[in-house]
Amino acid sequence: MSETADIAVIGLAVMGQNLILNMSDHGFKVVAYNRTFTKTQTFIEGPAKGTSIVGAESLQEVCNKLSSPRKIMLMVQAGQAVDDVINQLVPLLDEGDIIIDGGNSKFDDSERRASELGEKGMLFVGSGVSGGEEGARHGPSLMPGGHRAAWPFIQPIFQAIAAKTDSGEPCCDWVGDGGAGHFVKMVHNGIEYGDMQLICEAYHFMHSALGMDNNAMAKTFTAWDKGDLDSYLIEITAEILSFKDKQGHVVDRIMDKAGQKGTGKWTGINALELGIPLTLIGEAVFARALSAIKDERVRASGVLDGPVINSDDKPEDWIEPLGQALLASKIISYTQGYMLMQAAAKEYNWELNYGGIAQMWRGGCIIRSAFLDDIKAAFDKDESLTNLLLDDYFGKQIHKTQNSWRIVISKAISLGIPMPAMSSALAFYDGYRNARLPANLLQAQRDYFGAHTYQLLDGDQQWHHTDWIGSGSSVASSSYDA
Amino acid sequence: MSETADIAVIGLAVMGQNLILNMSDHGFKVVAYNRTFTKTQTFIEGPAKGTSIVGAESLQEVCNKLSSPRKIMLMVQAGQAVDDVINQLVPLLDEGDIIIDGGNSKFDDSERRASELGEKGMLFVGSGVSGGEEGARHGPSLMPGGHRAAWPFIQPIFQAIAAKTDSGEPCCDWVGDGGAGHFVKMVHNGIEYGDMQLICEAYHFMHSALGMDNNAMAKTFTAWDKGDLDSYLIEITAEILSFKDKQGHVVDRIMDKAGQKGTGKWTGINALELGIPLTLIGEAVFARALSAIKDERVRASGVLDGPVINSDDKPEDWIEPLGQALLASKIISYTQGYMLMQAAAKEYNWELNYGGIAQMWRGGCIIRSAFLDDIKAAFDKDESLTNLLLDDYFGKQIHKTQNSWRIVISKAISLGIPMPAMSSALAFYDGYRNARLPANLLQAQRDYFGAHTYQLLDGDQQWHHTDWIGSGSSVASSSYDA
Repeated sequence: MSETADIAVIGLAVMGQNLILNMSDHGFKVVAYNRTFTKTQTFIEGPAKGTSIVGAESLQEVCNKLSSPRKIMLMVQAGQAVDDVINQLVPLLDEGDIIIDGGNSKFDDSERRASELGEKGMLFVGSGVSGGEEGARHGPSLMPGGHRAAWPFIQPIFQAIAAKTDSGEPCCDWVGDGGAGHFVKMVHNGIEYGDMQLICEAYHFMHSALGMDNNAMAKTFTAWDKGDLDSYLIEITAEILSFKDKQGHVVDRIMDKAGQKGTGKWTGINALELGIPLTLIGEAVFARALSAIKDERVRASGVLDGPVINSDDKPEDWIEPLGQALLASKIISYTQGYMLMQAAAKEYNWELNYGGIAQMWRGGCIIRSAFLDDIKAAFDKDESLTNLLLDDYFGKQIHKTQNSWRIVISKAISLGIPMPAMSSALAFYDGYRNARLPANLLQAQRDYFGAHTYQLLDGDQQWHHTDWIGSGSSVASSSYDA
Repeated sequence: MSETADIAVIGLAVMGQNLILNMSDHGFKVVAYNRTFTKTQTFIEGPAKGTSIVGAESLQEVCNKLSSPRKIMLMVQAGQAVDDVINQLVPLLDEGDIIIDGGNSKFDDSERRASELGEKGMLFVGSGVSGGEEGARHGPSLMPGGHRAAWPFIQPIFQAIAAKTDSGEPCCDWVGDGGAGHFVKMVHNGIEYGDMQLICEAYHFMHSALGMDNNAMAKTFTAWDKGDLDSYLIEITAEILSFKDKQGHVVDRIMDKAGQKGTGKWTGINALELGIPLTLIGEAVFARALSAIKDERVRASGVLDGPVINSDDKPEDWIEPLGQALLASKIISYTQGYMLMQAAAKEYNWELNYGGIAQMWRGGCIIRSAFLDDIKAAFDKDESLTNLLLDDYFGKQIHKTQNSWRIVISKAISLGIPMPAMSSALAFYDGYRNARLPANLLQAQRDYFGAHTYQLLDGDQQWHHTDWIGSGSSVASSSYDA
C-alpha cells in the first residue's frame, strides 16, 4: 500500500500541471485530478512520468489518498466552477481539512467562501498565483489569505515552490484573513496594467517624438533595466523590441488593440467604491479601452488634427529625463496601489503585512522589480507608514525626478503624444502635496444648488449653509444628490 | 363627492412637496401622501393651502382618489424604500396602472422593477429628476424611461411641469426602455462632476498661477457666461466668488474637502464595466476623493516640494487661453459621456434619443448650458453620429482651442498646479485622434508572459503567438489573466 500524498491539485490546465511538477520537484507527493480522466492519464504518462505524482479518477479517490488534514488546491476556472468543486468536495472532507483556491477569483467570492467553509469546520485559503506558466513551473509569487489556521500546514509547500528573492527569501507569505490574498493579487494585476501602460507611453515617446528605431529603443530599455527601473517588464520589453523573424521586427506588425481579462477593471471599480484616488491604474484601464476602438481612431485621425511633430529633438537629450518620468510615475502608481490596500484593510477588517506584500511581489510575478526592495525597506523602517510618498527615500526620488517628469510631459503635450498615465500621475502628485485644493469652490457649488452644507477651514466641526441667492430657503441637505 | 385626481405623489420631503406644488400650478389635481400623516397635514395646511391638492391618510385612500389608469409617483429615498412602497401598492392597483419612481435610483434597480411590474401587468417608469429643490418647484429636467405605454398618460403632466428651453421646448421627453431614464440621469450627474471639477481647476489656476482675487475671478466667470461657456454652473460660480458676508468672501473660508453622494462613482464603475474610456469623469471623482484626505495633504505639503510659483504671469495673457482649455475639456467630457450612453444602449438594448437627451438637459438641471444646443444640433444633423468629435462643429471648436489647451496645461505642470481633468481630457484627445497607439507593444508583452496571442495590423483576423524566448512552449492563451 502506497504512502499518503501531501497535497492534491484539481484541474490540469497548464497552470495546474506546472504547479504540480513544481511541488514534485521539491519533494512533495501530489495527487492530480481532472474532471476528464483522460487528461489526468495523459499528464501522468507524459510530463509527470518518472515522478511520485499520482492520478485519481474520482474526488473520493483524491480524498482517500491524502494525509490529514487534507490539502486540496483548486486550479479551475474562476467563478461557478470553484463553487461546484467545493460543493462536491465538502461531503467527502473532515473537519480541519483545507481547500485552497489558486484561481483568479474575485476577492469577494473568496471572502464568501471562507465564511461558508468556516461554518462547516473546514479551512479555506484563497491564494493569488502570479507568474504565468513559467512562474507556476519554476517559482510563482504566491499570495495566500483566508483561514490563518491553515497556514502552518501549507506554508512548507508554498514557500518551497515559490520564487525566491536574491537573498533567498520566499516570495510567499501569509497575506491576511478572508479574501485578502485574492485582493492583493487583484491590486498586483492593477499595478501590472499601470506598469505596462507607462512602458507603452515611454515607447510611444521614443518612437514618435524621438524617431528612435526598435534597436535603439531596445538598447534604452536594456540600459534602464540596469538602474532604478530594473524589472521583469522592462527586461521583456527590450527583448520584444529586439525580436525579429524573417519579415523583420514582429512588434511593428502587431495590431495596437489591447485586450484585457478584467482584473484591472476590478481594481478600478474597487477604488471607486472605497473612494481611493487610483488615477494611474484607472487611466491605464481606460487606455486599453481606447486602444480597442481602432477603426474609430483611424477614422478620427483623418479628421482631427494635432501639432506637427518636427524631429529635431535628439534621443540623447531626452532618454534620461524620460526614464526619470517613468520612475516618478511608477512611484505614484505603487503609492496609489498601497493606498487602496490600506483602505481595503480598514474596510474589510484585514491586517495586511505591507512589507511582506512587496516581498511576495519581488520575484516570480509579472511586476517583479528591484523597486519593490525599496518599498519593503520603507515599511521595515516604519510599519505604520501611511503613504509611500511620505517615506524619505521615495520623497527624495520624487524630488530628484520631478523636474524631468514635468519637462517630458509638457513636451509630449506640445507634440500631441498621449501620456494619460504619466500625466495623471503628475496631477496626482501636485494634488497630494497641495495643502489647499479648489474643493472649497466645489463645496460652495454643492451648497448653492443642493443645500448640501459645508464645513469651515477654521476647524469647527459644524456644517453650515449659506443662502447664496437670498431666497430665504432654510432647507438643508439631502434634497439633491451630487 | 369630489372629482378624482390626476396623479399622486408619495413622499413629502422637499423634492416631493415642490413637485406637487409645480403640478398644481399647472392645473393638475394631486393627491399627497406621506408615511407619517402629520407631515401630510402640515403640508396641506401649509404650502398647499388654497390649492386643489388633497391629502390621503392611507395608500388605499390614495388609490381611491385617482382616475384610471392611476399614476402614482414615488419621491422616497432610493433603495429599499422604493421596493417597500411598490410592494404595498401592488395589491391595491389594477392592471395598466402606472408607478413612477422619481428618486435617485440606480438604473439597474429600475431595470429590475420595470421587469417585475411588467409581469404583474402594471406599468413602471423610472424618471431622472434634476434641478434640485428650485428645479422641482419651478421646472425640473425630467428623464423618464421604462414602459413606453405609460408615456401618453404622463406626458401632459411631465412636459407641463418641466423646464423649457429658450424656444419653449420642454426639457422632458421619453428616454427609452427599462432603466434608461435613470441611466441617463446617472450620466448627467457624472457629467456634472466633470463640469464642476473643470471649473475648480480653472479657479485654481486663476488663484494660484495668476494671483487673481475673488472679484477678478467672478468677473471672468461672468464674462465666460456670455460666450461659449454660458451655463448654470459658470453663472453660480461667479455669484459664489462675489458673495460676501460680514467676515468677507465666504468661499475663502470653506473647507476644501469635497463630499459626494455616489452617482459620479456609479458612472465611473459603469464605464469600467462597459469598457468605455470615461477618463475625465473618472478623474473628477478621484479628485473629490483626493480632496477629502485634507489632513494627509497638509502633512504632505510640508514634506513634498514642487516648483516655486513666480507671479509674473499676467491675467490678461492667460484668461483667454484658460477659457479655451476649459471649453476643449468640456467637449471631451460630453464626448465621453455620449460614448458611454451609446455603449449602454447597445449593451442593454435601449433605443436612446441622443438629441432629445441634450434637450432634456438644456434647462432645469445643473448642467444646463448653451453648449447643449450644439450637441442637439449635431445629432439633428446626423442621427447616427458615432462620436461628437467627428461632428464638424465640435471638430472645429477643438481645432480652434487646442493650442491654448496645450499651453495652459503645460503652464500648470511647470507651476505644479494640478489639473487632473483637463490634462486627462487632452491625453484622451491625443489618443483618440491617433491611428496608431502603442498597444502593439502591450499586446506583445501579454503574449510574451501569458501567451495571450495577438492580431496583426495587416487585417487577417487570426490570433498569433510568438515564442519570444525560444522555449518552444506551444500553449496559447487563457493561462494567465492580465
